[in-house]
Amino acid sequence: MSPVKTVDLSNTAKAYFAPATVSPAGRLIHVSGQVGSTKDGHVPADYESQIHLALLNLHKVIITAGSSVSNIAKLTLFIVNYNPADRKHTPIIEKFLRGHRPAITLVPVQQLAVAGWLFEIEAVVALPDPQPLPAPVAAGTPTESFDVVVVGAGLAGLAAAESLLKMNLSTVVLEARDRVGGKTWSQPLSSGGGIVEIGAAWLNDVNQPEVYALAKRLGVELIEQNTEGKVVAQTSDGSFKQFNYGDLPQFDADTVADIARIRDMCEADCQALSAWQPRDKSLDSMTFEAYLRSRGASPTSIATATVWTRAMLGQEPRDLSALFFLNYCVSGGGLLQMRSDRKGGGQHLRIRQGTQSLSKGLASSLPSNTVRLSSPVVSIVRQQGSDLVQVTTKDKVFMARKVILTVPSPVLKSISFSPKLSPAKQLWSQSTSYGYYTKAMMVFKSPFWAQKGFCGLTQSFTGPASVIRDTSSPADNKHVLTCFMSSAPGRAWAALSTPEREKKLLEQIGDFFGVQSTIASEFVEMIAYEWVNDEYAGFGCPCASLPPGVIETLGPDALREPCGDLYFAGTETAGEWKGYMEGAFRSGLRAAKEVLRDLESGPSARL
Amino acid sequence: MSPVKTVDLSNTAKAYFAPATVSPAGRLIHVSGQVGSTKDGHVPADYESQIHLALLNLHKVIITAGSSVSNIAKLTLFIVNYNPADRKHTPIIEKFLRGHRPAITLVPVQQLAVAGWLFEIEAVVALPDPQPLPAPVAAGTPTESFDVVVVGAGLAGLAAAESLLKMNLSTVVLEARDRVGGKTWSQPLSSGGGIVEIGAAWLNDVNQPEVYALAKRLGVELIEQNTEGKVVAQTSDGSFKQFNYGDLPQFDADTVADIARIRDMCEADCQALSAWQPRDKSLDSMTFEAYLRSRGASPTSIATATVWTRAMLGQEPRDLSALFFLNYCVSGGGLLQMRSDRKGGGQHLRIRQGTQSLSKGLASSLPSNTVRLSSPVVSIVRQQGSDLVQVTTKDKVFMARKVILTVPSPVLKSISFSPKLSPAKQLWSQSTSYGYYTKAMMVFKSPFWAQKGFCGLTQSFTGPASVIRDTSSPADNKHVLTCFMSSAPGRAWAALSTPEREKKLLEQIGDFFGVQSTIASEFVEMIAYEWVNDEYAGFGCPCASLPPGVIETLGPDALREPCGDLYFAGTETAGEWKGYMEGAFRSGLRAAKEVLRDLESGPSARL
Repeated sequence: MSPVKTVDLSNTAKAYFAPATVSPAGRLIHVSGQVGSTKDGHVPADYESQIHLALLNLHKVIITAGSSVSNIAKLTLFIVNYNPADRKHTPIIEKFLRGHRPAITLVPVQQLAVAGWLFEIEAVVALPDPQPLPAPVAAGTPTESFDVVVVGAGLAGLAAAESLLKMNLSTVVLEARDRVGGKTWSQPLSSGGGIVEIGAAWLNDVNQPEVYALAKRLGVELIEQNTEGKVVAQTSDGSFKQFNYGDLPQFDADTVADIARIRDMCEADCQALSAWQPRDKSLDSMTFEAYLRSRGASPTSIATATVWTRAMLGQEPRDLSALFFLNYCVSGGGLLQMRSDRKGGGQHLRIRQGTQSLSKGLASSLPSNTVRLSSPVVSIVRQQGSDLVQVTTKDKVFMARKVILTVPSPVLKSISFSPKLSPAKQLWSQSTSYGYYTKAMMVFKSPFWAQKGFCGLTQSFTGPASVIRDTSSPADNKHVLTCFMSSAPGRAWAALSTPEREKKLLEQIGDFFGVQSTIASEFVEMIAYEWVNDEYAGFGCPCASLPPGVIETLGPDALREPCGDLYFAGTETAGEWKGYMEGAFRSGLRAAKEVLRDLESGPSARL
Repeated sequence: MSPVKTVDLSNTAKAYFAPATVSPAGRLIHVSGQVGSTKDGHVPADYESQIHLALLNLHKVIITAGSSVSNIAKLTLFIVNYNPADRKHTPIIEKFLRGHRPAITLVPVQQLAVAGWLFEIEAVVALPDPQPLPAPVAAGTPTESFDVVVVGAGLAGLAAAESLLKMNLSTVVLEARDRVGGKTWSQPLSSGGGIVEIGAAWLNDVNQPEVYALAKRLGVELIEQNTEGKVVAQTSDGSFKQFNYGDLPQFDADTVADIARIRDMCEADCQALSAWQPRDKSLDSMTFEAYLRSRGASPTSIATATVWTRAMLGQEPRDLSALFFLNYCVSGGGLLQMRSDRKGGGQHLRIRQGTQSLSKGLASSLPSNTVRLSSPVVSIVRQQGSDLVQVTTKDKVFMARKVILTVPSPVLKSISFSPKLSPAKQLWSQSTSYGYYTKAMMVFKSPFWAQKGFCGLTQSFTGPASVIRDTSSPADNKHVLTCFMSSAPGRAWAALSTPEREKKLLEQIGDFFGVQSTIASEFVEMIAYEWVNDEYAGFGCPCASLPPGVIETLGPDALREPCGDLYFAGTETAGEWKGYMEGAFRSGLRAAKEVLRDLESGPSARL
């Protein structure tokens, strides 16, 4: 696909970069050395943060020039204080390249042009031929017309469609999958009663009014998350500490004090941010890890914060913009509230029938044939001079005055837009990434942990599971521990065979609750789904994350603001409760409102 | 020829690199920084060895990508511990470029990506358009068909042809020159009786059975090399030491001991190698000079070893792979035997009628019209689907089932192959090089040196002649000292006018033998031929050499192994007596055997 061809030798095929690339004629982009500074020249002290910013600046130039990362022919890295034993740039650049393998030269240098610059990257990039005009739709392709096409039948899309239909706007929802619900996906347990949640699992009845109202409307049963009994923490050396829910693990006093200090600092810093309009150049210029280090966080405090980012986003603190993470927290009311299993917290209530019942209930309340399943959108084209947008699936054409896209931002890359999305949206959607994040539901014959006085919640600095939560349903005689495998320990676990995966988790659970000898006989089955292989989720979950610089460079609204007749929803675009059902639902309502506003004020007549 | 055009300014034409180059649109290869490591990652400690390996690695990528050194547009050199007063990279890179002048930037750096890397080179290279299909042969071009076409009527080609004809395979030998013999070329002395050898001069009757049997068969007269009388050595300060043949010059005891130690070590190390299958990653990763230095050789020992490489190959120790040089020695039975003028040694016997009489005798024993003179081969083409190879000269076409190429490897570059030779053969033939090497035959009225008790053999650390040998023929009243001008001192001498060249050599000879006052009156004439200008020898002699890394990267058989219906001979491809007539002759027999074997086993019918 890329016009840049990799040249490989017998011993280079496994390297993340190529010994050489061949670029096509046409036109070449020579990009000046890009450094790790924000738009207005602020340079974070931290080396890794500078790498992220430099890559963002490079990416900005490449997109502005009309090309993309996969067209990079050559990179040259200039690194100050280079340490061959600690090649911090490698994973960051590898992630940035997403499998593309340009030629690379690394040049350690004593200094760069400006004091404080630690990393500079220059590039030669092929400029592909201009995008051909979209092929005309084949004659005879069935065509339907609507006021609004909604892409995606998750909670965001269904909420938007319901709103629009209420306002008598003709609306169709195009869903790529053969089911509704998106990341709400509940599966009946084959081994007994009840369901397990493959995706979204929790809501609350305090500050999640929209999704709670929907649950009430649909009459589903709610199960309160148990926080009675001991929590267990597994420390870096593999030892275990038990403590009451809400307390901190009993490290030495200094360590506990530092964890509390860092936690409270994060809480204060996120509370200082606007959920919708987070702005803080300094926080967005650095990784969350650099932020923690710059505040003197101890290794144990950093390990604790790593559990947060792993359990919440599947990411390491070094992969996230500090501003992004703190804003993510404040979208759920703050770090403590978002992480809480108690009343008002992010993990307070479950739905006995499964969260997908919300999506299913919503979908079935819409007029028949509103939702079209198995209809992945291939292209979205606005012909010059036309008032209508043409949304094409593999065998149908939908003409619409407005289009609401509710897909996760990484999925935007897979849709062919003409004209192209704005550079800002391209850069945002190409900058977001998922970490590794898999939930494994371990089904047991009995709630042995509860019987031994544990609430079922654990956290671990080592893994494989970073966090475990009780997701049982006593009424269904369903006894489940849901294990969250994230980031590096998650990837290591994912590399194992299924029996080995089960064995590793059973060992960890056995150790957590002191049931090593009986755990095997308690075990019924493991149910896991790897969102990392799910095309329509954008290959990950629960929510795409941003590295340093993007929010500050593009502005906090860059993803969610309308672009022509295209509107953007999805939990990622939410101001409140990003990554949660509440955020998804509200984002759909918001996008529907934007459409209504623009249709009322716009020049084009109703269809 | 190269699509990369040099941009020059008024003051840059003499630099080995260009201020800029212009590349064609087409396609560009961006090559990652290449460093001085072997295929499996071994990095020699020595800076110059690393440069050689890095250039080989670069060359490998360029050939793999389908281009060549002459298409390099830009090089960037990164050098650790750079010393502006000792620009060791310059001659190596200049030699690598073979006159091509890309743009170059040199960047001294404190370190490179991996500790121990001292040199890194990256490149931008034009990729020429795909080779056009060979132009069809003009209608009416005379065409002949043979079982085998042999390219080159030197000893290798003639030996091969004789073998094949004996097996009743129709065979033709295409010779570019207007004479047979290749590097056997004997010229009658205009100033008196006998001949001088422009090229090959020596054989022996102990371990060179093939060429000795040929000499016997043809009834030529053999002249034993004289080793009676004093040898003279000229040291680095220009002073002279006399000693008996077989002894070492009388330096101080430590120096003599070190020369003996180094000589014996080289002898032992070459004896440990297989002549046909030399394998030693460590020895091939470094230059012969780095090998000597790593073994603690004293400056005088290195100067002594420099006389070896100059006299044997016209090269400096820094230009050769240690493995290549030691293997070259063992091909002649070892360093001592190959350098010996005594029984069994490389320089023991001469032929009164000249070595070319062997080639002439062999050629005249073949059926008439077997050897076609003045027939340089332009292209060798195997059309898709054809069983025959088409060998084209400027005015004829020869169709053959098999082709034996006996040309020196540098000559392969001048023949247009379709399909191209394998990347390994391209890389080998483009990596070999000749040093500077000229013999000047100084003809005198009398053997004044012998009359003063000298055997005529000298060696010099300074030059112009590195080695001088008596090549007289008393029966012809011919008194000749053959002077070997090699490498740097040889080039300095070659820059002089002919009268100055004569004067310099006469001065050196006068000093060697203490005849400064009478030498001018003894002098008759100087006969010299510069193989460095000889197109069909590949612009050098006696044998092309390899820098570090090639043997280990490509394997020791890469040049000699057949490639489709092409077979490879010539003294360079020999296992025994590389660079000698014996090696050439045996290589021809070996290639003929390979052809016979494959024709017998192959699917194609006899013509």
